Amino acid sequence: MRIKEILNTAAINSTITAEGWVKTKRELKGFSFIEISDGSTMNGLQVIIDGNLADYEAIIKKLNTGAAVTATGLVVESPGKGQRIELQAKAVTVHGEADPETYPLQKKRHSFEFLRTIGHLRGKTNTMGAVMRVRNACATAIHQFFQERGFIWAHTPIITASDCEGAGEMFAVTNFDLANPKRTKEGAVDYAEDFFGRPAYLTVSGQLEAEVMAMAFKDVYTFGPTFRAENSNTSRHLAEFWMVEPEMAFCDIVGDQDLAEEFLRYIFKYVLEACPEDMEFFNKRIDNSVLATAQNIIENEFARITYTEAIALLEKSNKTFEFPVEWGIDLQSEHERYLAEDLFKKPLIVSNYPKDIKAFYMRLNDDQKTVAAMDVLAPKIGEIIGGSQREERLDVLERRIQEMNIEAADLWWYLDLRRFGTVPHAGFGLGFERLVQFMTGMGNIRDVIPFPRTPLNAEF
Amino acid sequence: MRIKEILNTAAINSTITAEGWVKTKRELKGFSFIEISDGSTMNGLQVIIDGNLADYEAIIKKLNTGAAVTATGLVVESPGKGQRIELQAKAVTVHGEADPETYPLQKKRHSFEFLRTIGHLRGKTNTMGAVMRVRNACATAIHQFFQERGFIWAHTPIITASDCEGAGEMFAVTNFDLANPKRTKEGAVDYAEDFFGRPAYLTVSGQLEAEVMAMAFKDVYTFGPTFRAENSNTSRHLAEFWMVEPEMAFCDIVGDQDLAEEFLRYIFKYVLEACPEDMEFFNKRIDNSVLATAQNIIENEFARITYTEAIALLEKSNKTFEFPVEWGIDLQSEHERYLAEDLFKKPLIVSNYPKDIKAFYMRLNDDQKTVAAMDVLAPKIGEIIGGSQREERLDVLERRIQEMNIEAADLWWYLDLRRFGTVPHAGFGLGFERLVQFMTGMGNIRDVIPFPRTPLNAEF
Repeated sequence: MRIKEILNTAAINSTITAEGWVKTKRELKGFSFIEISDGSTMNGLQVIIDGNLADYEAIIKKLNTGAAVTATGLVVESPGKGQRIELQAKAVTVHGEADPETYPLQKKRHSFEFLRTIGHLRGKTNTMGAVMRVRNACATAIHQFFQERGFIWAHTPIITASDCEGAGEMFAVTNFDLANPKRTKEGAVDYAEDFFGRPAYLTVSGQLEAEVMAMAFKDVYTFGPTFRAENSNTSRHLAEFWMVEPEMAFCDIVGDQDLAEEFLRYIFKYVLEACPEDMEFFNKRIDNSVLATAQNIIENEFARITYTEAIALLEKSNKTFEFPVEWGIDLQSEHERYLAEDLFKKPLIVSNYPKDIKAFYMRLNDDQKTVAAMDVLAPKIGEIIGGSQREERLDVLERRIQEMNIEAADLWWYLDLRRFGTVPHAGFGLGFERLVQFMTGMGNIRDVIPFPRTPLNAEF
Repeated sequence: MRIKEILNTAAINSTITAEGWVKTKRELKGFSFIEISDGSTMNGLQVIIDGNLADYEAIIKKLNTGAAVTATGLVVESPGKGQRIELQAKAVTVHGEADPETYPLQKKRHSFEFLRTIGHLRGKTNTMGAVMRVRNACATAIHQFFQERGFIWAHTPIITASDCEGAGEMFAVTNFDLANPKRTKEGAVDYAEDFFGRPAYLTVSGQLEAEVMAMAFKDVYTFGPTFRAENSNTSRHLAEFWMVEPEMAFCDIVGDQDLAEEFLRYIFKYVLEACPEDMEFFNKRIDNSVLATAQNIIENEFARITYTEAIALLEKSNKTFEFPVEWGIDLQSEHERYLAEDLFKKPLIVSNYPKDIKAFYMRLNDDQKTVAAMDVLAPKIGEIIGGSQREERLDVLERRIQEMNIEAADLWWYLDLRRFGTVPHAGFGLGFERLVQFMTGMGNIRDVIPFPRTPLNAEF
């Protein structure tokens, strides 16, 4: 039985076996308390070890913070406050000790920076434990949301030969010896001799392939790692990060907005219900606005305005922004936060952005100036979702590709989708770590993924 | 409403809107039938278009196989057999046509080889549609199985710096220009200047990192893509394939076997219930043993024998095998199939293999000759799961690493897990595409993943 189950459901006077790692030990006269944890919940199980237990002294000596232990005994009511029960141990097995002299996770608080250097142990701390449980709950909520609605999980590829979206920030994948790649007579790298017979990369998005699948299954979603070789050593960037990308056929930009709103509300609600103790912990220890932010998202209908309206509101604001406001600019974080936090005080969807600041595949509006793009902005958070209706008209898409100087040869199959049974379709992308950060208030993206990959770091 | 829902639940005389792509059209005197599909089910919805509909001639001309259409009308009882209802269209919108002269998916049957060349369209065929629905159901069953049991989905990294398991078959990941990587004064590739400051690869398994997480959360599982740069152009190999890898702390080889058995049974049961029509299709069209195989797995307790017993049974068999049987050999497919199919006639778990044919991390048994490894073999299928109890004793693990000449420097963190709170733990790996093949009877692994990556092929 997991400790979460034991704490919630174990009957008084029943005999149970608990397994976990020692968080704390208190030696008293004639008996000791240990608190053990197995990562299933923030709370530990208190175990009382009586001095009469065989080998008491030897066992207690081994039961230091970090030791792995199995304890069998009687469930009794706890006289302590904040806990329903405790365990009176009848038998204790210590599997592996943790030497207090060398074990890095002693009781004192550690900085997140330090914990990143012991990524193989940091999951045992309260904060990282709570983060990973919330991350798991978010992931489960995402699958459940889409599966309940009949979406197919689209397993789009990690390795891709198309770099039309990458703009030089894609990792190369090769089976060549880097010291000595095969070369043509002219001395160029001979990609025909590499594993895939052509240059290959790590994907930056599963969207184009998700569109393929939406044309067969109507509603699909991707959920998995994507990559960017951007040399940004910041608290907001990872080289390997997870994305969720739903794609819906027979859907326009309004349906896209509806889904995004329903989706966010569902996930926040799910996590509040699945991880109440962890969320309270974050609210108390990390960021005292996370519960209010979650409630705001759950309870309020999102506002919806156009980009053009957003620009007008920003111009009317009389605020001085670092980046001056005029029609055509990309909205900056300061603009987005003003709109969501100060003006609307709730989540906000901005749509129909100028075509020149958006991707080639977004659907051109009738004004010929804007595209059917949308961003979801949330108070305290800023942009959390970006999406669009896709250009389903072959001639318009071909023109846009040409205008933007994109290599069309690799996109023959993407264009084919517009040739055979094309239909209005739309989708969006959500950065999963960004979501977990918003949910938990964790300030550094490296602390919401188990094994962060960043410039000069691929440890563990 | 999706077509699956319409077929199952739409009330007679209700007015509904259906969306999908035309599978077939039959023009009769004064009206036409079209069958439309949206990938939600094997079955299409029959739509009757009356000759009195405005623009009847023009619309019918556009409604060829592959065209995208929205039809609104009245649900009526179907006089045809095999279908509960049909739709009497009152309004029809054709979104995108599909020219019969150029659209590759006409009614006739296509070979799977041909369909692989149009990977962007093949999801629209009956077989690939059924495969992807079953694949999605398998994936959902996997998450549900583990989440119900309190496991955490461990998001282990794709990019790794450790190659201790790869043995030269790992893809390199780099941000260097392959034509001109940075070099040291001596002319070697200067990995310190590459993105991660060291050689980096695509992972072949998330197991080592899953062990990290099991030491914090007790029970975890990975589920995602893994990679192998093996130049094998066969129907059984992919360069990018999905793996499921549960890892359990406080668990031995017997608990591992119990979980594997429960897990397989759960997935097969789930898929039979979630996709009955698709499974019947596979049984009828692809392999007439898939339903019996699934029932065999669901209904029978798995047999359990040791490797040594397996060798004795093979020696007693009086069969002539291509690979001669003696203690110490790796079991070949012919041996595994004889045991599961001919002898036990049900799934079989073989455990405790010779240490010399298994990986360094598997737990050494007291006989010093075998390790606590296990393989699950199934009739018609062969090996479907491989797992082991892991070596949790630091001294034994260090000795094994040395004996097997494995570079230990990169494994400092893996060894640390044995230094601090080590505990018996175990896990297994299941090749996800292999599972989908077994489930569906599909002969080529390239036909059970949406976008296969194989030697010389990374198209779409």
